[in-house]
Amino acid sequence: MSKLLTPGEVATWLKEKNDFLIITHRRPDGDTLGSASALAQGLREQGKDAFVLFNPETTSRYLRFVEQYHAPDDYAPENIIVVDTATIELLPKNADKYKDSISLCIDHHRSNTQYADMLCLNADNAACGEIIFDILMAMTGKLSSQTAERLYVALSTDTGCFSFGNTTAYTLYVASQLVEAGAPNKELNKVLFRTKTHSRISMEGMITSGIEYYFDDKVAMAFITKEMMETSGADEDDIDDIAALPGSIEGVYIGITLREMSSPHDCKLSVRTRSPYDAQEICAEFGGGGHKLAAGCTIDKTIPEAKELMLDVLKNIMSF
Amino acid sequence: MSKLLTPGEVATWLKEKNDFLIITHRRPDGDTLGSASALAQGLREQGKDAFVLFNPETTSRYLRFVEQYHAPDDYAPENIIVVDTATIELLPKNADKYKDSISLCIDHHRSNTQYADMLCLNADNAACGEIIFDILMAMTGKLSSQTAERLYVALSTDTGCFSFGNTTAYTLYVASQLVEAGAPNKELNKVLFRTKTHSRISMEGMITSGIEYYFDDKVAMAFITKEMMETSGADEDDIDDIAALPGSIEGVYIGITLREMSSPHDCKLSVRTRSPYDAQEICAEFGGGGHKLAAGCTIDKTIPEAKELMLDVLKNIMSF
Repeated sequence: MSKLLTPGEVATWLKEKNDFLIITHRRPDGDTLGSASALAQGLREQGKDAFVLFNPETTSRYLRFVEQYHAPDDYAPENIIVVDTATIELLPKNADKYKDSISLCIDHHRSNTQYADMLCLNADNAACGEIIFDILMAMTGKLSSQTAERLYVALSTDTGCFSFGNTTAYTLYVASQLVEAGAPNKELNKVLFRTKTHSRISMEGMITSGIEYYFDDKVAMAFITKEMMETSGADEDDIDDIAALPGSIEGVYIGITLREMSSPHDCKLSVRTRSPYDAQEICAEFGGGGHKLAAGCTIDKTIPEAKELMLDVLKNIMSF
Repeated sequence: MSKLLTPGEVATWLKEKNDFLIITHRRPDGDTLGSASALAQGLREQGKDAFVLFNPETTSRYLRFVEQYHAPDDYAPENIIVVDTATIELLPKNADKYKDSISLCIDHHRSNTQYADMLCLNADNAACGEIIFDILMAMTGKLSSQTAERLYVALSTDTGCFSFGNTTAYTLYVASQLVEAGAPNKELNKVLFRTKTHSRISMEGMITSGIEYYFDDKVAMAFITKEMMETSGADEDDIDDIAALPGSIEGVYIGITLREMSSPHDCKLSVRTRSPYDAQEICAEFGGGGHKLAAGCTIDKTIPEAKELMLDVLKNIMSF
């Protein structure tokens, strides 16, 4: 169990210490990298030494702003901080040597397993960046435009530019303070939310053209083949969150994306549902898991075969 | 010229008067309808009679929340208020009889022609709804969940859920207050920003599949034919803002949408640019107009012919 700290108590602790290394989670997103960068920046502004551990999975999209904080190879930190990471298994491989000496974890996941000595957790926050905001404000009472910019990346990416259901009044309040402090929201939004790669556009064109509707249009199915990935030149970044597409169609209660993986007999299904349908229940039929409204599973079949198996399962569910 | 009023002065005036009719602009959007509905709601909560003039162009998407404020046919208002409308020509036809007796205009367009007796204008606001917020707060110091919900529609639709370049720190601050007061942002965002009609999905599929790139991919062209509209069953609502699509592609400086109109020899072009390219300059070549970054024109040719004419114009521009 961790000792629980408030943001104010974290601020006091940070002021007393020095030589920080901040670690982000695997498959790093805007929240973990923005939170880590903002914290490093804020600590440096207080005259501290603070670095972010290089995360080997960082995509080029985020590298530009996080790499200025990357720790040199010979850095010998005194205090290890982990941000936005629920379990120790979610840390990247190169963090292994620090796993037994994590002083502080700052997180917003209710499922946090309390692996650090101290934990600052607020599960009501949409983004970990909101807690970093609280900590920096408690430390100095103000934000530089640099910390504000990093935190804006954290908040906006974790909330789909404030459109997801996790966005609270406090998220919007913090965002207003960040823009007030100089976060260039116009430019950041353009890059983060209003620009699509050629490959993404090409994939969206092929996917939307091939959507199939079933059960009075309550079910929509989208298909991603290896050939489509090759034709469009899309990588994983390009199809980020594309599984949300069939579920975003008016009147659709169950949106399913079937993706052909490494072999033609290996198919990954992403299921998104609206109440009363349970995505987890549907995927459990194939040994998969997830949450009530978003789940996934793998079926060792071709796409047409997997589709038929899924339709059979849905037949029972939709008949109620 | 209008007498200029602050939100506080408007609040004082509203408290003194009664029997209001609130008028929205042609092709009404979420901001004008949300602002009018919130003002009517706020005035009713103060024991006043307040109605919104039925706007014949209101789409079903917005009718649900505005229609409870629609004025009965025999309503005899004492005070006429216009919201979110820069010029008197932008009022709907059924507002003609009120045109000479508009007491107050509440607006955020810098180009407002001061046609009302009094004007409350703040051109720094992203949405007219922000000014309505200021007025209601000056009037009572708090918001009901109903006014908050209407204003959230106003702010979020005028800013693309806080992603457009017009979003300020104040917009986000007001949004946080609205959610705090009970605006159901999760549900509203789902309907307003995260749901697409079948026809929209179908149009996006056809349009993105047909995008053509020119001049080292700096120019992207999208095509909308009458046949595509018929196949998809799309109406004007379904293709709202679709002209932004080619311009949203990474690396594209000039995004052009060519749409076949009533006859095969009638083609409407929408041009979106990024600096240094000037959309207005491009469209002026064909007698069109607009702004630096968004402009339009009509060419009395078929789509393939109009495309060639446009490419000829671009050849000169892109050679610099």
